[in-house]
Amino acid sequence: MEKIEHINYIKAPIEVIYKALTTQTGLGAVWTEKLIVKPELGFINEFDFGDNYATKMEVVELSQNKRVLWKCIATDPEWVGTGISFDLTEKDGVTTVVLKHFDWRELTEFYRWCNYNWAMFLLSLKSYCEDGQGTPYQKRKF
Amino acid sequence: MEKIEHINYIKAPIEVIYKALTTQTGLGAVWTEKLIVKPELGFINEFDFGDNYATKMEVVELSQNKRVLWKCIATDPEWVGTGISFDLTEKDGVTTVVLKHFDWRELTEFYRWCNYNWAMFLLSLKSYCEDGQGTPYQKRKF
Repeated sequence: MEKIEHINYIKAPIEVIYKALTTQTGLGAVWTEKLIVKPELGFINEFDFGDNYATKMEVVELSQNKRVLWKCIATDPEWVGTGISFDLTEKDGVTTVVLKHFDWRELTEFYRWCNYNWAMFLLSLKSYCEDGQGTPYQKRKF
Repeated sequence: MEKIEHINYIKAPIEVIYKALTTQTGLGAVWTEKLIVKPELGFINEFDFGDNYATKMEVVELSQNKRVLWKCIATDPEWVGTGISFDLTEKDGVTTVVLKHFDWRELTEFYRWCNYNWAMFLLSLKSYCEDGQGTPYQKRKF
């Protein structure tokens, strides 16, 4: 199995990052403006990136201000069955975010593109939490 | 062994990207303004990121407009002995860059940080090659 792992350091309280990762407003500002999201265990979050399908993520774990885990249940076949986690820790006013996207079956071109784009996600998350301005899919330059 | 792999798509001719990856001017605009670089097989490129040491990369392979391979010979111990390659292909005015950083001994916090930062490198490379404006280390916000 292949995995993607990133880390980023955000100068904002852990509550701010947790909220950004679990709410319609937060993920709408960071990832895509077209989404249906609830901070609720078992809820199926839906994200639209202008493809002909929704990316559906089941909320499998929610530990307040600590950890979020999604399982991908529908989207591009390479993502289905994979998991995505966000682990948060705070120290001296800086919140560390570890992002893991695991259980990829293969290291493909799409894996490489997603690896690049998870970094763009973390960059957008940092901008949103530090300056109030994310770069969702609709505002990105490709 | 662990590896980092990214891909990015740049709307510029392959010669422009190859030049950016092999010259003092290009890498100075994309990666760090403090550097000693020559597009010459066997040359030891040096990059300074404000640490107390230089990051030294031996130019191990140079295939004009196609491939660049560096071997890291001095810097943070986790990087020493690792290799970094850039593979370029062009189609319909878009150049695809595959970046690989391989032979990591372990998946550490520093690996995760470098994974994130290789994506920032590719974002900077894209901006520089498409719009003439990169974001070297000295101009980045951390």
